[in-house]
Amino acid sequence: MNLKLPQTTHKRIVVIGGGFAGMNLALHLKNTDFQVVLLDKHNYHTFQPLLYQVATGGLEPTSIAYPLRKLLRKIPNAFFRIANVENIDTDKKIISTDIGSLEYDILVIATGTTTNFFNLPQASTAKMKSLKSISEALDLRSYLLENFEMALLEDDPQKKQALINIVIVGGGPTGVELAGAIAEMKNHMLPRDYKELDLTKMQVHLYEATDKLLGPMTENSRERALEYLKNLNVQVNLKTAVKSYEDGVLYLGEGQQLPTETVIWTAGVKGKSLPGINPEAVLPNGRIKVDEYNQVPLLKDVYAIGDISCMITEKLTHGHPMVAPVAIQQGELLAKNFIRKEQGESLKAFEYFDKGSMATVGRNKAVVDFPGKSIKMGGFMAWIAWMFVHLMSLVGFRNKLIVLTGWVYNYLNYDRVLRLIIRPSRE
Amino acid sequence: MNLKLPQTTHKRIVVIGGGFAGMNLALHLKNTDFQVVLLDKHNYHTFQPLLYQVATGGLEPTSIAYPLRKLLRKIPNAFFRIANVENIDTDKKIISTDIGSLEYDILVIATGTTTNFFNLPQASTAKMKSLKSISEALDLRSYLLENFEMALLEDDPQKKQALINIVIVGGGPTGVELAGAIAEMKNHMLPRDYKELDLTKMQVHLYEATDKLLGPMTENSRERALEYLKNLNVQVNLKTAVKSYEDGVLYLGEGQQLPTETVIWTAGVKGKSLPGINPEAVLPNGRIKVDEYNQVPLLKDVYAIGDISCMITEKLTHGHPMVAPVAIQQGELLAKNFIRKEQGESLKAFEYFDKGSMATVGRNKAVVDFPGKSIKMGGFMAWIAWMFVHLMSLVGFRNKLIVLTGWVYNYLNYDRVLRLIIRPSRE
Repeated sequence: MNLKLPQTTHKRIVVIGGGFAGMNLALHLKNTDFQVVLLDKHNYHTFQPLLYQVATGGLEPTSIAYPLRKLLRKIPNAFFRIANVENIDTDKKIISTDIGSLEYDILVIATGTTTNFFNLPQASTAKMKSLKSISEALDLRSYLLENFEMALLEDDPQKKQALINIVIVGGGPTGVELAGAIAEMKNHMLPRDYKELDLTKMQVHLYEATDKLLGPMTENSRERALEYLKNLNVQVNLKTAVKSYEDGVLYLGEGQQLPTETVIWTAGVKGKSLPGINPEAVLPNGRIKVDEYNQVPLLKDVYAIGDISCMITEKLTHGHPMVAPVAIQQGELLAKNFIRKEQGESLKAFEYFDKGSMATVGRNKAVVDFPGKSIKMGGFMAWIAWMFVHLMSLVGFRNKLIVLTGWVYNYLNYDRVLRLIIRPSRE
Repeated sequence: MNLKLPQTTHKRIVVIGGGFAGMNLALHLKNTDFQVVLLDKHNYHTFQPLLYQVATGGLEPTSIAYPLRKLLRKIPNAFFRIANVENIDTDKKIISTDIGSLEYDILVIATGTTTNFFNLPQASTAKMKSLKSISEALDLRSYLLENFEMALLEDDPQKKQALINIVIVGGGPTGVELAGAIAEMKNHMLPRDYKELDLTKMQVHLYEATDKLLGPMTENSRERALEYLKNLNVQVNLKTAVKSYEDGVLYLGEGQQLPTETVIWTAGVKGKSLPGINPEAVLPNGRIKVDEYNQVPLLKDVYAIGDISCMITEKLTHGHPMVAPVAIQQGELLAKNFIRKEQGESLKAFEYFDKGSMATVGRNKAVVDFPGKSIKMGGFMAWIAWMFVHLMSLVGFRNKLIVLTGWVYNYLNYDRVLRLIIRPSRE
């Protein structure tokens, strides 16, 4: 079996992963002589920063996803296949996938990251929820609601409490935004839907192992975010590590324990390992070490971009933050460098243009840092800025329109209307 | 285990099923002394007439579904549980479900219908698709797209043809509307997404065992619908029964056969059997025989409304058509009759007010009959009327707004944008 790609006399660039990095690389190779082959295990691009809104019933999955084939309509020299990569032979320059194997001239790895549970035993993580894909977000949405339905039927007070307690582990943007969204559900939607439950007893906990939320942001923004979460009655626990999670009880650093059926792990990511890649090219956190041109030094004609790559240079000892703008800029520059190389021009080294960072905390509140201009914003204006930036980052006019409509509706109605429990197995 | 409902000294009405019939019954019992308990296996109401648009990527499932708890917020005397009914003891007046058992004073069965494959062997129907629920519509959406992805990789011409051939069985409204929507995908969206496939070879077949489409409509409308489908290159085969479906080949009445991986069965429905109901109360097609008050004659305090009920009276020998307006009107009248009975007033017999029937056939085209006024419409104006009526029937302002936005977008762009293949098992 092979991938049935058209024969070409030109160079074939195979891109693994249709996230921000891979997608932008492909877009900027439009109308070149390269044959671009994009592989992804899904047929859509996912806007990961808004997955938490899918999980909390604020947005539809199709609003934050974009069909890769629709994107590739614009790029006549690009081809797409749904495929899972099973092996890469970097000597023979062949990729093996579940739908066949493929020779490449240039390989670009843009596979992103996956959830990192660090050293927690598998018995503890098996029942934890994570939030890295559309499927996981939809599963979490149904799971949260199913627990409230079960709480209605529960006699045992501790079990009932466990069903309505929600724990989020990790104080990064995903953890903070998710905690805010769940607190808003607790304050508005849930008491209206579950009048039979005493939801004043519901607890939303956020556990963070370090001494601060939103580590890379300014102190000003970090403190504001903490204050916003406390105002929403989120119990923020800093310097608190998770030890284990068994039989509906979460065990924490200092011997505390908490009954809960819902532990959402947002505390870490790691690179997705690709079989066949020389282990010396891979850092302990699974990310692939690249030079300032996103080339993998040990491997011929292999590049890595986006979250999976970690650029280590003299100036840059820990790589870039794993955020969408880095991926977008790396994808774009690498495409341009491929074109430059063909034309015999010299390559440009990657430099990250940091446009700032932001996080939203429930309705009306957000924090924004613009590092270049050393401006910090908080509150309602920051929330408007957050919405604007995220809307602009969505791919496609339809998605922008539908997301905006949904946000306006949710804002006016204090509601999260998309609360369908959809389980394929139930049919 | 029990359903943990509040004690009440008033009569308890248990309603099984939150479709149009059950939902409207509950709404019209608002602020009465009855305790209304609504049971459904899903936590949402489904607008079934638009399921085919979910299956063909035109609409999101949340746009045509409505959370039952949101509906019940308006009815303080109503309670909701997700439950599967396992048995009904009509002597002791107890329902047993998977979450416990419950006593009732009055039972209303509003469970609707399920797909009827008639006498086809299970080996033939196992791989057929049906379209009675959100889960089935989402499964069909992913399945259609997966087959096109597989066709790209297929060498064998017959297997490739089978992957791109689509068969719809049944010439009722669902079959006709689905055939039109798939033909539009063939004419617009699919060739743009799958440039590598020769989609002029793709065939859309509609098989109907009788000699006409849209049986209950006027001859004028039936002929127009047939013409519209032919203009869309749907191969309509009347008087053609399906014999069996094995190993990707559909065997038909007169010995013909067709290679296809996609057979969508819309050719019949039957009542959902409820264990414990006296078989003498049930007709051969699974529907429950009721009198003109929707009461089940053989059973005490048991009523049936909507598609599951079949009203047999002197005037009415075959019951009403299984359409939403009958269900809505029966739910409303039964609620009013319950109130009348409590007040010692006489009951009103059900009379169906037929507002007409309609079906859409692709972009721009529909047929409408208004029987009372003997007006028939076709073409673009009928299509506008079809959209208006369906928009108005959707529950909730948000759904109306999102569906309208989606339709306008799809119309302007000749597109079906919601083409994500989401499979929980792939994660």
